[in-house]
Amino acid sequence: MSNYNKPNGRNTYGKRNSGKRYITYRKAPYKRPASQKAKESVRIAFLGGMNEIGKNMTLYEYKNDMFIVDCGLAFPDSDLPGVDVVIPDFTFVENNADKLRGIIITHGHEDHIGGLAFLLKKVNVPIYATKLTIGLIKGKLEEHNLLGKVKLVEIKPRDNITLGEFNIEMIHVNHSIPDAVGLAIRCGAGVIIQTGDFKIDTTPVDGDMIDLNRFADYGRKGVLALLSDSTNAERPGYTMSEKSVGDSFETLFRKAKNRRIVVATFASNIHRVQQIIDVAESRNRKVAVLGRSLENLVSVGSELGYLNVPDGILIDINMIRNYPDDKLVIITTGSQGEPMSALTKMAFADHKKVSLTPNDYVIISATPIPGNEKMVGNVVNELMKRGIEVIYEKMYDVHVSGHACQEELKLMMGIVKPKYFIPAHGEQKHLQKHAGLARAMGIDNENIYIADNGDMVELTEDRIKKVKTVDAGEVYVDGIGVGDVGNIVINDRKKLSKDGIIIVVATFDSSSGYIVSGPDVVSRGFVYVKENEELMAQARDLSCQVINNCFDGKYHDWNYIKTKLRDELSRLMYEKTKRSPMILPILMEI
Amino acid sequence: MSNYNKPNGRNTYGKRNSGKRYITYRKAPYKRPASQKAKESVRIAFLGGMNEIGKNMTLYEYKNDMFIVDCGLAFPDSDLPGVDVVIPDFTFVENNADKLRGIIITHGHEDHIGGLAFLLKKVNVPIYATKLTIGLIKGKLEEHNLLGKVKLVEIKPRDNITLGEFNIEMIHVNHSIPDAVGLAIRCGAGVIIQTGDFKIDTTPVDGDMIDLNRFADYGRKGVLALLSDSTNAERPGYTMSEKSVGDSFETLFRKAKNRRIVVATFASNIHRVQQIIDVAESRNRKVAVLGRSLENLVSVGSELGYLNVPDGILIDINMIRNYPDDKLVIITTGSQGEPMSALTKMAFADHKKVSLTPNDYVIISATPIPGNEKMVGNVVNELMKRGIEVIYEKMYDVHVSGHACQEELKLMMGIVKPKYFIPAHGEQKHLQKHAGLARAMGIDNENIYIADNGDMVELTEDRIKKVKTVDAGEVYVDGIGVGDVGNIVINDRKKLSKDGIIIVVATFDSSSGYIVSGPDVVSRGFVYVKENEELMAQARDLSCQVINNCFDGKYHDWNYIKTKLRDELSRLMYEKTKRSPMILPILMEI
Repeated sequence: MSNYNKPNGRNTYGKRNSGKRYITYRKAPYKRPASQKAKESVRIAFLGGMNEIGKNMTLYEYKNDMFIVDCGLAFPDSDLPGVDVVIPDFTFVENNADKLRGIIITHGHEDHIGGLAFLLKKVNVPIYATKLTIGLIKGKLEEHNLLGKVKLVEIKPRDNITLGEFNIEMIHVNHSIPDAVGLAIRCGAGVIIQTGDFKIDTTPVDGDMIDLNRFADYGRKGVLALLSDSTNAERPGYTMSEKSVGDSFETLFRKAKNRRIVVATFASNIHRVQQIIDVAESRNRKVAVLGRSLENLVSVGSELGYLNVPDGILIDINMIRNYPDDKLVIITTGSQGEPMSALTKMAFADHKKVSLTPNDYVIISATPIPGNEKMVGNVVNELMKRGIEVIYEKMYDVHVSGHACQEELKLMMGIVKPKYFIPAHGEQKHLQKHAGLARAMGIDNENIYIADNGDMVELTEDRIKKVKTVDAGEVYVDGIGVGDVGNIVINDRKKLSKDGIIIVVATFDSSSGYIVSGPDVVSRGFVYVKENEELMAQARDLSCQVINNCFDGKYHDWNYIKTKLRDELSRLMYEKTKRSPMILPILMEI
Repeated sequence: MSNYNKPNGRNTYGKRNSGKRYITYRKAPYKRPASQKAKESVRIAFLGGMNEIGKNMTLYEYKNDMFIVDCGLAFPDSDLPGVDVVIPDFTFVENNADKLRGIIITHGHEDHIGGLAFLLKKVNVPIYATKLTIGLIKGKLEEHNLLGKVKLVEIKPRDNITLGEFNIEMIHVNHSIPDAVGLAIRCGAGVIIQTGDFKIDTTPVDGDMIDLNRFADYGRKGVLALLSDSTNAERPGYTMSEKSVGDSFETLFRKAKNRRIVVATFASNIHRVQQIIDVAESRNRKVAVLGRSLENLVSVGSELGYLNVPDGILIDINMIRNYPDDKLVIITTGSQGEPMSALTKMAFADHKKVSLTPNDYVIISATPIPGNEKMVGNVVNELMKRGIEVIYEKMYDVHVSGHACQEELKLMMGIVKPKYFIPAHGEQKHLQKHAGLARAMGIDNENIYIADNGDMVELTEDRIKKVKTVDAGEVYVDGIGVGDVGNIVINDRKKLSKDGIIIVVATFDSSSGYIVSGPDVVSRGFVYVKENEELMAQARDLSCQVINNCFDGKYHDWNYIKTKLRDELSRLMYEKTKRSPMILPILMEI
């Protein structure tokens, strides 16, 4: 094992080495710790977080016991119109409720806790998490009226918990929210390390560096498998320390001179907020917080001791008019340009409480998440149109990621020295890159498993293999409906949004066969009706004709008439407009 | 003027210099060339391309003469569902058709020629453009059945044309399509330089560097105003030469070994295609072209002599099965992940002619345009899931921009030395950055004009000022409809896409007041009806109740019933589902 990182080992990452190996990863075969005797295999089911960013959820099974790690949500792409959030499919968990011993949550981000309340309505088992995470979960449970009905167990790093045949140790990691943990999962089959979301910050804001020593302890003893965070696997190098953002704030606050400062950031980044407060204090500025999720974070964070707010520095947003611009910092939500967020409303001069002027200095302390670039750009443009200086994207170092980059990911592998490697949390391109890093570290390709949601794999000393597929689709939450919007409804919405709808209504006398009213043709989202009265008249005439042609003394088949109306009107509309609206015939009988 | 670039002049860009000036931009006041005597002002109307990327269109007016530079289209954002393309509003041009002397097109990209056919249906004036641009315009005119009905005048760089009181010289520039020109626009009021889209490529693929000398000649004689391309004003440094992409292809084609190579690129980039063909030839591979717009480019480009295709190298896409993988390169459209493009279809195994395997090596030779990141990512993920190696984004230098970066932009200002500066082609953030560069070069802030679409400015030796606002909105093209889809229709489409539609239909006997049929409740895009029969039944009952409540011997006001139905059903639906579908009541009478 000592030759793992020997100096002549060449990092072959990024090169196709055609099977030629430069590093012998592990000469001695994997040795089960002496304390473990059972030969039984451990199983892992990936219920979310594979081939996607979001809704992380992993299930472990050994003998007759199961437990879950994380239960997150995902935010829908633009191809899911009207859907509020996406959560994992819980069918497999429900079907195995009798085996389920508990749920461990690694940290308090939405993509790790956001599905929890929905799951707890189906199965009620204890939740294990650190203090801040529990605080944030409580807020979720309250919204869903579940508070007090679920057992919440607070744990600390280096604590061990027993869930049936499993014994799990919490290991402190750095991330963009405090109190995040990775897990060492022990059972008769061996030790599995799941990092959770992590980065290696040697100078974190709270002074508490990731517990690499503990990961190293496990690495020394022998680890069966490592599940590691792939989010930043495409990025070379190291992620900067969160502290570096504080230095940037120092510089920018000075540049702001006597202007009011507005900083937009992720609502969950307590350390970022702490640094803004610290710099504000050093420059004698008061701090006001804007946006519901940020207000919530500041209140939970300071209540639980994660946020150190000097007396008198925080002021209510309604009080800002009592302070001159150069004595104020406003921390706001909306760093992703979200349409309903405080920053967007301010940019479009649509916020009730805050009006921006050229004497504001706006810092967007975030990088656009892929897909949000355009929205963030729009907000920047609007602010600039109003004469406001905006610091955004990579202009200064006003943001660092919460996830490990390539060198950190390799370091984690190098310390943990797993037999099997499973890249987690990421789209295919991230998982593949991460797998490439693992190969470069000398892990055999057959010991790397790139999973998809729904895969259940079985691990023994001898092999990792997929044993079955379990239910793990997407469940759409729209309003209070969970799962009542599916592909048919989504496809209808997409069609409606593209070319609108045309409705044809006619009432028949079923005995005589006469049309007693209509056909009326109504459209929405198709065309300016006033400018196209002729087209609508043609549609009416055509509908009449179609219906009459179907009559030979009586109407035989209403479905046939409807199909015929749909076909003929589609043809007419496409011919006249080159558009394909949805055609909806409604036939009524008296 | 000689102190313009003197060594002790400090570049202050990026710093707020609080009014303190480091460079004296132009000591002597602007001097009109002796040949020009008139004092009359020149006017510029910005009809598109300001505060947006796309639909570039500028109009110049002097005395009784007008001409237009470019007439492009823009591609709609996701907030314009169903809209195919967006073109400028031509009202102002139509109202001044008698003064219009011609249209000059700077190059053949869609954002400069795509609106032309629509404009020519309103006003028929001669078009002036270089050979390749004319070739591409002809294709457009053919589609719109206008070929032969419009006068097309082919011009060359350094040619001068006279349009009424204007005299315009074409100046060769580098861009991502050959045969691009900038303009020196002369009239009694002075000289205006409009760069068009440009970059400074000292080693362009066709060997023909931008004609900086000609820009310098004008700069020496005195330039009233410069309109310059702001697209890359946010990027520091220089844009790399297109040639550097050729070097990357050399390397990557070698790495591909015996795999088939698929390169996705912009359909209009003839030099890129040329380089792919050149490298393919050197490695004994045949080239097949996939995608209508690329096929068109290759045929126009080689016909007009802009593309040098060695004999026998091009093969038909239907013939690829006759060649082994290591003897083939496929050039394809879809570098932006467009859903209907050839690359996307291949990625999703949905292309009729080409099936990809792990023995393909895909190079995406483009950078995602803001807003397209997610789509490109999806295509990369799909390709990778199928075991295909993909080279994308910044992994290697497989793409360079066609637009000048900051150092080039400053160089252009430094050579042209304009009195007035107008940043063109860009969103607010680009225009502002470009204005910042101009200030750093020593141009007085009051001599910089950041325009919006619809602004008409007047320029004299003494001042630049806005004199009026002209019509310059967006006109949506959907199918063959031009302008028949407006905000009402778009808002309906958005609402429909969010929560769908519920239609309530009832037929009345107008004499008795009885409902003789219905009310029927039909929904689309709202909810799975089968799972929500109860909700639909409630909606029916409620509709019945509302209608009955409106009856007191007769129905007085149908609009009142409709409003009431809409309100009551909206309330019910929001209460039960927290959604707000569109409610459409249709009342019929017998």
